[in-house]
Amino acid sequence: LVLATGEQGAALLYTFKWLLICILIGLLVGSASAFFLVSLDWVTNYREENTWIIALLPLGGLVIGLLYHYYGGRSVKGNNLLLEEIHTPRERIPFRMAPLVLFGTLVTHLFGGSAGREGTAVQMGGTIADQFTKVFRLRPRDRKLLITAGISAGFASLFGTPLAGAIFGLEVFVVGRIRYESLLPSFLAAVIADYTCHHLWGVSHTVYAIPFVPELSVTGFVSALLAGVVFGLAGMVFSKATLLWGNIFQRYISYAPLRPVVGGVVLAGVVFAIGTTKYVGLGVPTILAAFSDPLPVYDSVVKILFTSFTLGAGFKGGEVTPLFFTGATLGNALSQAVPLPMALLAGMGFVAVFAGATNTPLTCTIMAIELFGAESSVYMALACVTAYIFSGHSGIYGSQVIGSPKH
Amino acid sequence: LVLATGEQGAALLYTFKWLLICILIGLLVGSASAFFLVSLDWVTNYREENTWIIALLPLGGLVIGLLYHYYGGRSVKGNNLLLEEIHTPRERIPFRMAPLVLFGTLVTHLFGGSAGREGTAVQMGGTIADQFTKVFRLRPRDRKLLITAGISAGFASLFGTPLAGAIFGLEVFVVGRIRYESLLPSFLAAVIADYTCHHLWGVSHTVYAIPFVPELSVTGFVSALLAGVVFGLAGMVFSKATLLWGNIFQRYISYAPLRPVVGGVVLAGVVFAIGTTKYVGLGVPTILAAFSDPLPVYDSVVKILFTSFTLGAGFKGGEVTPLFFTGATLGNALSQAVPLPMALLAGMGFVAVFAGATNTPLTCTIMAIELFGAESSVYMALACVTAYIFSGHSGIYGSQVIGSPKH
Repeated sequence: LVLATGEQGAALLYTFKWLLICILIGLLVGSASAFFLVSLDWVTNYREENTWIIALLPLGGLVIGLLYHYYGGRSVKGNNLLLEEIHTPRERIPFRMAPLVLFGTLVTHLFGGSAGREGTAVQMGGTIADQFTKVFRLRPRDRKLLITAGISAGFASLFGTPLAGAIFGLEVFVVGRIRYESLLPSFLAAVIADYTCHHLWGVSHTVYAIPFVPELSVTGFVSALLAGVVFGLAGMVFSKATLLWGNIFQRYISYAPLRPVVGGVVLAGVVFAIGTTKYVGLGVPTILAAFSDPLPVYDSVVKILFTSFTLGAGFKGGEVTPLFFTGATLGNALSQAVPLPMALLAGMGFVAVFAGATNTPLTCTIMAIELFGAESSVYMALACVTAYIFSGHSGIYGSQVIGSPKH
Repeated sequence: LVLATGEQGAALLYTFKWLLICILIGLLVGSASAFFLVSLDWVTNYREENTWIIALLPLGGLVIGLLYHYYGGRSVKGNNLLLEEIHTPRERIPFRMAPLVLFGTLVTHLFGGSAGREGTAVQMGGTIADQFTKVFRLRPRDRKLLITAGISAGFASLFGTPLAGAIFGLEVFVVGRIRYESLLPSFLAAVIADYTCHHLWGVSHTVYAIPFVPELSVTGFVSALLAGVVFGLAGMVFSKATLLWGNIFQRYISYAPLRPVVGGVVLAGVVFAIGTTKYVGLGVPTILAAFSDPLPVYDSVVKILFTSFTLGAGFKGGEVTPLFFTGATLGNALSQAVPLPMALLAGMGFVAVFAGATNTPLTCTIMAIELFGAESSVYMALACVTAYIFSGHSGIYGSQVIGSPKH
């Protein structure tokens, strides 16, 4: 029995090299996520206790707008810059992208914009990772793996879902394809970053519970597919709305720093007019409520409006937690018509709208398992896959490349 | 907000079409798996209660050898025929492949060969599915999806793991790449086939339990990687041993039907000499024991020898359950040296040796979650990914194409 020892030697070298690099990436990105999560918690609490601060949203918008306009350079592209550097590498991602997006996101949340946080973590992860390209003199192929590992580390540590984070890095670049080049780096960086954030820094994540999952039946199967179609359409509407508001702002306000100012005036006005902060910030309390209490049927639509307007105006953050909000509240509303438990539908919407808007059905199925446990995995997979099929070929990341048509 | 209604219409048509096809495939393949599982249970019990029948193993070998030689045609290629038809389609997979492999596997197990069962389910699934190519006048591209969905359905219903079955169909063809063309068909067929086998026919699957999973620590992380390396090497040894015995038999016995006869004489002789049926058949009792009782350290090596010899001689079945046996007993043995609980290491070996030998790390990670629950998922993923990296570029399926190098 001849062992291919040459091949094993290469595997060993490869593993050692990436283990070392991923320990560095994991420690740094996990720490960055921990700092971000704690700060985000702080600004969110401050805003909720001092809602008058939302009146200053236009001012916050101005600061973000000026910073990105005069100092941001390519950073303004956000997640898409990472995707573009993977597809057609040009030059090192500027380090300033990390502090800029961190600051921009905290300002957005402090003054009451409606946004997420995964964009921030992913951009910090990719940026921090790419700084090692020069340090270690990595070749172009290795640089791809490095950025991918950074993205996986950011996503994993932010949501406390190491496997979903690892797969997200592999799945997000090309619609309809996964390549395993960075399989090992992504898993190593994701697990280490999550460990750093959760165990070393002691930052905990929100716990969602689906108390009862019915055995699969024909009704349950059909319900999951139908709900998946609705979730996919919601994901598509979310993407298109974000794009639409971005286009409107660009068309009517040519001076970029002014866009979030105008956007901030409108948003702050609306918030004071409706008299609730339910739709600003991350919206975690409402996401949690969607698993147990009946909510207004329009919640998901209002959140799409708030977030697409906020991001289209040039505020910073991410889309994923608002996508969770949209999906969970939509699932909550669907439970009045679809014969599945409310918490199960809320959980399915939570991941499936995200799957549709970002074209990452496997990430979302695994995320559901990591957040809600394995019992509901078949429902989750059916909803995520169907949402993926029905969300159209363009998602919230404009620089995704289509590798394989959906249908 | 303009909806791309044309695209949604196409998605709807696509979904309806594949839902109909997958209901058919799922019902048929799930029923075939149910029949196979019940028959396999019957022949296994009969053999264990009448061990004298192992003396007739050479006779069983002769029957299988003659049938495949004079009547099998391309069927003798087994799983590789399915892979080849996906890569370079030639002609419809002959229907006879399904009954032949079913009969061959039952004979192998009845008379005490050491083999698995997933090859049988996968071949029945792919063959049954491909018969619809003509019925529905499907185009070549659709035929690929059809065969893939059949493979997913077979795997899912055999092991009671719908998501792992779905991913297996997507992951097995190309090493290092997944394409989503058959994402929806594979998930639909897998879920329906598993439902058919488990709920409609009431066939249950073995339950494995990992009672305690320690929180991740630096020691646990390093242990998982080290164990993964060992599991990957075991997977490689398994593949190479199967290939080696096949080559030896082909070289020294030119008349194919005689190979399983000679193999049967040797195997039956060894079984009576060592006086135990522990290493023949599927070996499920030993797999279960590996989760709770200390086992001899040589169990995994002996099982590799028995199975590679059985399959190399021309008996039928699959490799996966013997890979489970090899991995679970190897993990059991490793627990004497590696500071992780025995059941956890047995479970990690169970999936990771399989991941290494078939180059399907995502399938195996998801399978672990479906079989053992979500608690151990990080350990499972680390072991499966590392095993994949260290198992070399050739696995047990010779017709796999390398899409992306491992390191």
